[in-house]
Amino acid sequence: MRAPDGRVVATTDMLIEGRHFRREWSAARDIGAKAAARNLADIAAMGARPTALLVSFAGPGELEVSWVLELVAGITQESSAAGAAVAGGDTSSADVVMLAVTALGDLEGRQPVTRGGARAGDVVAVTGSLGGAAAGLALLTAGLTQDDPGLEPLIRAHRRPTPPYAAGRQAADLGHVSSASGVQIELRTKAITAEPVAPQRLLARAAAALDGANPQQWVLAGGDDHALAATFPPDAALPAGWTIIGQASTGNGILVDGTRWNDAGGWEHFLA
Amino acid sequence: MRAPDGRVVATTDMLIEGRHFRREWSAARDIGAKAAARNLADIAAMGARPTALLVSFAGPGELEVSWVLELVAGITQESSAAGAAVAGGDTSSADVVMLAVTALGDLEGRQPVTRGGARAGDVVAVTGSLGGAAAGLALLTAGLTQDDPGLEPLIRAHRRPTPPYAAGRQAADLGHVSSASGVQIELRTKAITAEPVAPQRLLARAAAALDGANPQQWVLAGGDDHALAATFPPDAALPAGWTIIGQASTGNGILVDGTRWNDAGGWEHFLA
Repeated sequence: MRAPDGRVVATTDMLIEGRHFRREWSAARDIGAKAAARNLADIAAMGARPTALLVSFAGPGELEVSWVLELVAGITQESSAAGAAVAGGDTSSADVVMLAVTALGDLEGRQPVTRGGARAGDVVAVTGSLGGAAAGLALLTAGLTQDDPGLEPLIRAHRRPTPPYAAGRQAADLGHVSSASGVQIELRTKAITAEPVAPQRLLARAAAALDGANPQQWVLAGGDDHALAATFPPDAALPAGWTIIGQASTGNGILVDGTRWNDAGGWEHFLA
Repeated sequence: MRAPDGRVVATTDMLIEGRHFRREWSAARDIGAKAAARNLADIAAMGARPTALLVSFAGPGELEVSWVLELVAGITQESSAAGAAVAGGDTSSADVVMLAVTALGDLEGRQPVTRGGARAGDVVAVTGSLGGAAAGLALLTAGLTQDDPGLEPLIRAHRRPTPPYAAGRQAADLGHVSSASGVQIELRTKAITAEPVAPQRLLARAAAALDGANPQQWVLAGGDDHALAATFPPDAALPAGWTIIGQASTGNGILVDGTRWNDAGGWEHFLA
């Protein structure tokens, strides 16, 4: 593949049935799109333009061919939307459906957005939507998908993320910016849990339906929305679509409204 | 990552417990080395120098940390042997151990070796060893690993392939050369099943131990040795370590000693 910039950025991510999706909860096309989107979003977060995907697929022999073709359609559809092509891959059999996708990207002469770029005094901003995917998964897990049809956008957010690919060329993932940059990230709940960052009213409805769920947790630790966060110099004009949700200061870790954030609600594969 | 050539070659391949290896048959270090070797060999087969691996790992929570560290040691050991570095990856939980590896490579200004390069009149040559991995797997499957310690090299060939990385810069995979080039590949059994291509005596001993197995099938369809095959112009001086095993002619498909080869013994994941 061409790498006209003389550099290539690459990322890889797995999607495993029973861990990241269920076939009874998501259509094949959505699963394929999600597998692609997770990787394409990571390329965007490095400030690069996605160029190619390599897709490894494994699944049980009794899968319907039509299901697999829909999966492939979802992959190519999302890939095209981000400007990338499926360039190759691998197939195998397995007891459950597994997708291991690698995405490559072109920096087009830009410096890569790394996790070490934040400076004390920077503002922290986000683009894309937060909290919906985790709320949708909570509703599906509780079997509450039929009771309130108005909550369907949250289910859809779990099934098929919509990363802001084009906006990603100035972005990096917030938590990692904090840990690697040697700065402290101070977030304001009011900004991060309200429109346009989070679908505040829908999250409140979902929390009520789930009787005691915490929408703030979905927003701060949900992790599956593939929104993008980045820090910008305090005097920079933010690109369209970005919302300030906090600031970077000397120190380390994350403060939410002045209180230290415990990340135990995050994505921990090997606990319990 | 740097791509000084302005192009990058990439390949991806999965290794799944129960399909490609068993933890009771292979040490963690060998499994890691094999996962890396399969991908590094594919980069070599394109005529490129391997530069980087991305490694996705999934496994059950009860895995010993020491087992996983040995797996990682096998990956980095094989990667270093081929001149590449592990640049990143992903982790998840799964019921069985799964490795999805992507390898990147640098063409260093060379033209890539593609599957469309063979011409009628070319000689077909191979470097590396054939048949040992399939024989070793057959011995392990039959539980015949203790009866004849002299067969250990075949077990080792299954556990840990030794691709001829350096020789790969002129090589491509034989079956695919045939199907994509629009030529017929004529192979001579005598050349392909004898030293130095196949460990003839060991394969005969293994076949005798297995009572009726066909060593020729291991050599022609085993597929897990990661030897390299390529076609060369008839008047070319073959690089050291390559052995002529046949020739390309007009037509398509594969002839073995003049008889059409049926690939049903090949690697067919989704049959039965």
